[in-house]
Amino acid sequence: MSEKILTLNPDRLFPIDPNLRALCRSLFSLVEKAPIVSPHGHTDPAWFATNELFSDPASLLLTPDHYLLRMLHSQGIALEKLGVGSGSAKRASPREAWRLFAENYHLFRGTPSRMWLDHTFVTIFGLTQSLSKTTADWFFDHISTQLQTDAFRPRALLDRFDVRYLSTTEGALDDLRHHQTLRADGWGKRIAPTFRPDDVLDPDKSGFSIRLRQLGEITHEDTVEYSGYLRALRKRRDYFIEHGATATDHGPSTPVTASLSEREIHRLFDKCVKDTATVVERELFRGHMLLQMARMSIDDGMVMQLHAGSVRNHNPDLFNRYGPDKGADIPQAVNFVHALAPLLREFGNHPNLTLILFTLDESTYTRELAPLAGHYPSIKLGPPWWFHDSPDGMLRFRRHVTETAGFYNTCGFNDDTRALLSIPARHDMARRMDCRFLAELVSEGRLSDDEAHELIITLTDELVRNAYKLSHIDHTNRQLRKP
Amino acid sequence: MSEKILTLNPDRLFPIDPNLRALCRSLFSLVEKAPIVSPHGHTDPAWFATNELFSDPASLLLTPDHYLLRMLHSQGIALEKLGVGSGSAKRASPREAWRLFAENYHLFRGTPSRMWLDHTFVTIFGLTQSLSKTTADWFFDHISTQLQTDAFRPRALLDRFDVRYLSTTEGALDDLRHHQTLRADGWGKRIAPTFRPDDVLDPDKSGFSIRLRQLGEITHEDTVEYSGYLRALRKRRDYFIEHGATATDHGPSTPVTASLSEREIHRLFDKCVKDTATVVERELFRGHMLLQMARMSIDDGMVMQLHAGSVRNHNPDLFNRYGPDKGADIPQAVNFVHALAPLLREFGNHPNLTLILFTLDESTYTRELAPLAGHYPSIKLGPPWWFHDSPDGMLRFRRHVTETAGFYNTCGFNDDTRALLSIPARHDMARRMDCRFLAELVSEGRLSDDEAHELIITLTDELVRNAYKLSHIDHTNRQLRKP
Amino acid sequence: MSEKILTLNPDRLFPIDPNLRALCRSLFSLVEKAPIVSPHGHTDPAWFATNELFSDPASLLLTPDHYLLRMLHSQGIALEKLGVGSGSAKRASPREAWRLFAENYHLFRGTPSRMWLDHTFVTIFGLTQSLSKTTADWFFDHISTQLQTDAFRPRALLDRFDVRYLSTTEGALDDLRHHQTLRADGWGKRIAPTFRPDDVLDPDKSGFSIRLRQLGEITHEDTVEYSGYLRALRKRRDYFIEHGATATDHGPSTPVTASLSEREIHRLFDKCVKDTATVVERELFRGHMLLQMARMSIDDGMVMQLHAGSVRNHNPDLFNRYGPDKGADIPQAVNFVHALAPLLREFGNHPNLTLILFTLDESTYTRELAPLAGHYPSIKLGPPWWFHDSPDGMLRFRRHVTETAGFYNTCGFNDDTRALLSIPARHDMARRMDCRFLAELVSEGRLSDDEAHELIITLTDELVRNAYKLSHIDHTNRQLRKP
Repeated sequence: MSEKILTLNPDRLFPIDPNLRALCRSLFSLVEKAPIVSPHGHTDPAWFATNELFSDPASLLLTPDHYLLRMLHSQGIALEKLGVGSGSAKRASPREAWRLFAENYHLFRGTPSRMWLDHTFVTIFGLTQSLSKTTADWFFDHISTQLQTDAFRPRALLDRFDVRYLSTTEGALDDLRHHQTLRADGWGKRIAPTFRPDDVLDPDKSGFSIRLRQLGEITHEDTVEYSGYLRALRKRRDYFIEHGATATDHGPSTPVTASLSEREIHRLFDKCVKDTATVVERELFRGHMLLQMARMSIDDGMVMQLHAGSVRNHNPDLFNRYGPDKGADIPQAVNFVHALAPLLREFGNHPNLTLILFTLDESTYTRELAPLAGHYPSIKLGPPWWFHDSPDGMLRFRRHVTETAGFYNTCGFNDDTRALLSIPARHDMARRMDCRFLAELVSEGRLSDDEAHELIITLTDELVRNAYKLSHIDHTNRQLRKP
Repeated sequence: MSEKILTLNPDRLFPIDPNLRALCRSLFSLVEKAPIVSPHGHTDPAWFATNELFSDPASLLLTPDHYLLRMLHSQGIALEKLGVGSGSAKRASPREAWRLFAENYHLFRGTPSRMWLDHTFVTIFGLTQSLSKTTADWFFDHISTQLQTDAFRPRALLDRFDVRYLSTTEGALDDLRHHQTLRADGWGKRIAPTFRPDDVLDPDKSGFSIRLRQLGEITHEDTVEYSGYLRALRKRRDYFIEHGATATDHGPSTPVTASLSEREIHRLFDKCVKDTATVVERELFRGHMLLQMARMSIDDGMVMQLHAGSVRNHNPDLFNRYGPDKGADIPQAVNFVHALAPLLREFGNHPNLTLILFTLDESTYTRELAPLAGHYPSIKLGPPWWFHDSPDGMLRFRRHVTETAGFYNTCGFNDDTRALLSIPARHDMARRMDCRFLAELVSEGRLSDDEAHELIITLTDELVRNAYKLSHIDHTNRQLRKP
Repeated sequence: MSEKILTLNPDRLFPIDPNLRALCRSLFSLVEKAPIVSPHGHTDPAWFATNELFSDPASLLLTPDHYLLRMLHSQGIALEKLGVGSGSAKRASPREAWRLFAENYHLFRGTPSRMWLDHTFVTIFGLTQSLSKTTADWFFDHISTQLQTDAFRPRALLDRFDVRYLSTTEGALDDLRHHQTLRADGWGKRIAPTFRPDDVLDPDKSGFSIRLRQLGEITHEDTVEYSGYLRALRKRRDYFIEHGATATDHGPSTPVTASLSEREIHRLFDKCVKDTATVVERELFRGHMLLQMARMSIDDGMVMQLHAGSVRNHNPDLFNRYGPDKGADIPQAVNFVHALAPLLREFGNHPNLTLILFTLDESTYTRELAPLAGHYPSIKLGPPWWFHDSPDGMLRFRRHVTETAGFYNTCGFNDDTRALLSIPARHDMARRMDCRFLAELVSEGRLSDDEAHELIITLTDELVRNAYKLSHIDHTNRQLRKP
């Protein structure tokens, strides 16, 4: 097979009907060049703090991307051959890994990863042929060369992408040293941490009591005692706020919340610290602490994000060999209606709480999430997440939630990515799919043309800044013309 | 922002493709003006019995509509400011409430409420500008003035809408006085009650034993004894039938059914009356009584409607302040396959039973409801309900159930509304979406043009009259030409 | 109503947009005439072994087809009137049954059965008018006459359909005598059995211990002892392999798997043999044996198919009167993530295991199945099955799984049918829907035209032969031009 030309269809993701397509283009012209606000993601703050050069395409694009690793593993490709792993098995060099990936690039047909990568190849590296076995080395060399230039340093890339705000995600014990460097360098308003305290809230995670002790040392609180533990958590939240955080993030396997009596929680906390709590007690404890996080959010103003419903490390053998985040997290069915009832009973109507819900269980969109968000003032719906951060996933999200929750109980897009270079591609995809959804409503007489032109800006810009309390972000855009 | 022109797109909800649209128009021309048969709804029979004038748009269109209240509440708007509530907080006047609603009308973009209201504004009140902050007073005055004319009295509106049959919904203890007035006035064949006995079947509802006593007084039966209780229920059913009812309606939180032994049910009934039954025992009792309702339906011919899967009053604070039906009912996952097994085992194949199932859990459409309806002679599928009474909801319903259950195990549309003026808009929407679904099948060679033209009449008219045993309703329609 | 012309739209199932339709045609031209490989189905091997003539359309097309029986039963038609049943009730003659079916043929509008039957009428019997009350006798006579000719003998039909491989399904105790005849006649490479051992693995099925004894007699193993039972199962697997089987098939009501200790399984096996095991113990036993099947598959290379989630014989009255497979099997919600964890923990990454998963619970597509298949090397996704073997079902399948699992973790189409004459119609439908899905991706810039042309052949031919280890099948096709 000869090399194929690689181009991006300027009308990609738009429907084929010429009238719908024209409407999509008109809507998209308002947001195509809009700045990027990324309030939730997993890029490494060290990149931006040190601003060092990236080495090669495999280390940058392949080995940290669990979307790619999972698919390659599913087709029987050993992760060592992709340069992953720390065991005794010989790991492939970056070039060898890249070649194997290129040879198997067809596996990604029909997936968003393919679209993100092609977008990256074309718009960031100016590549003009498709990735394949034949072009693997050419890609590797071409990308590696560019990565050695200043224009490809992390901060330069953020400028190029017009990223006005980027949030990273850190554990409760993180010292935020990279964010301190960024503040010292004048980047503090642009890059901020998110407080993700799962490691000190979830007694299921091994090393829980050790981390509680560390939490105590950092905060000078007696964290083997429940009230000291609460004070320590408040201190860490304050510390993150001082470093620019506006949001917390919580990723329990289920969205269970609970409101225990003083006596019960002291008893449970004690058992969790001593690692004698049963499975049910640990879930109750986690649920109680999630509710405390809502209480603290009301006090300190941090937006609360809840990503529930992923069974982490479903493949123990893979976990033992390669560690977490290699694509072995599998969703499970969740029940938000019952699980969130205790929290909502106490704080659901509170004007200071913003609770952003994400799901991996799409059956909850119409059954639970849209009805909850279309009723409770505290609840907003996060964008389609992870496996659903995809064209069809986004369309299903809008089609399932809008009729009940409307647009204004959603909160724009977030890319949730570890893959720095995919950020523009992901926002491009989300904006296109929103244009498409709006264009369809207009074509069916369900929305006026004017409203759609107003809404595309609302969805791209306003809702995300409102939800995440980012009104201070400079988001001016010469291309962003009000209709 | 200047005022926007308000018009209804004559092709609204039809797909944009010109051939599909032409086919939709052709199908729709057969049913656009067809009379309305509304076998399930929640309008107030007092309106029609007294035939008094409505006062103003806020009291008529806003405060009784939980679809509107829930969305406004979700955006932090206090219900008092919308004129709702009976507590100490100062309630807004109708005009103030209307202004606040108008100012926030953009929240309903993309929702069916917006389409129903615009349809009402244009076709019923002849309004020509969009509702907004600017036009709020003009709307209020214009609508209020019209409401003071005889043409806008409840009965005149039913004539104008060409409603040939309208069912209301009443509790088991209702004396049906308004229906008696209606019968005396010659409206008895056109407006009939539906028997909804949840209050005397569900021991979870507070005041259960008090109502049992009332049931005994009304029927002169000893209702603290199980067999007297059964006789009393049969008497109430007969009373409703005498007043024109052809259907019962049941809204338990789960569709559980049960068939208990004589000894067991006597024991359970006793505990429920004395309020000493456990949660599980109360659910079993409810399930057993649902099965008795099926048995009685076989005897007296009433169609049985089952709406399961809504957690009522999920927001206790809101409930305490404003009461029920303010938009705080949230769906939950249900399992019809196991829950209905006891009832179906006894009566599933009985030719006298019609059991119409509604769901708020769309994941049951293909998995449970279509397979059940496509097998059991007793089961029919109700139209998409509540949150799913919407364009996308309707399309999903047809796309999910038709391939397994066909068209003939469904039973037309019902509007299920408390909002009198929305009735024409809702039927218009349902008819358009059925046209669209049929047109798509024709365009894909899955149905002939002739069949689609026959089916649109079947779906609009025949199936609903057959399912609800309304063959006596005059449904002649000059526009209803057989193809 | 006069008789309607019956024709097949050559563009059936393709979207109406002319550009999309042209692309569908181009893709379809590559596979329209491709040979049929049918690796999973329920045709009767006796047909092909004896190669006797079929008698009449009712016995061939109606009475064995549970899709038809269920729909007719759902509309209150007694199965005796369709010629089904062995009780005292008078059964209709084939002609009477056919007439009743024809009269009710409109019930199947919008269902795949209707499309399969019309395809059969036109392409196999050359009929040119629609089936209806008026044409019932003409159909009956016309079809009956043709069925008496050699061209309609079972083997001739397979030739005519260009079926290159057909798998039947047999219980573990089956002597495979028909397959022996087929081998003797040189048809052994073309028709092979599938090993379906539910009857000797599931203690819920009545007669379990009797069948274990039979298993022992056939294999000369002591099957009342666990290790003898395992050896006996291995022997039966080998027997099937000798007769050409490449796959096993498992249809438990839930996909539960378990890995019990030696002591536990001996204890449980003993209780199951003696019929003293509880419901939970029986499920555990079944789960443990499913895991053993995976272990044996790794050893002997048989592909393992798992169809879970159907509640068999939901209608006991119907079952008692007419037996199984009359359309009373109803799906239920399943949880693959937890249920399969024990099996996947042991064998999920094993290169020798191919585990093909089917579901009736579409909510698992994005939530569970695509994430599992997009990660575990052992897992492939079977095509949409049973109620979902339909145009919308197929489209939902591709739209839900492709973005996460890609194309290469799926395994082509299988018809899963008892209805011999529907085989070409079903493959035609599946190929068309794949063309449609691919064309949509191309039109939206998500796939190149070249890739789509390559993929349609991959989906139709390569994936199925790879998944089911059928590389030896001759699949050359003059029409199958590589793009």
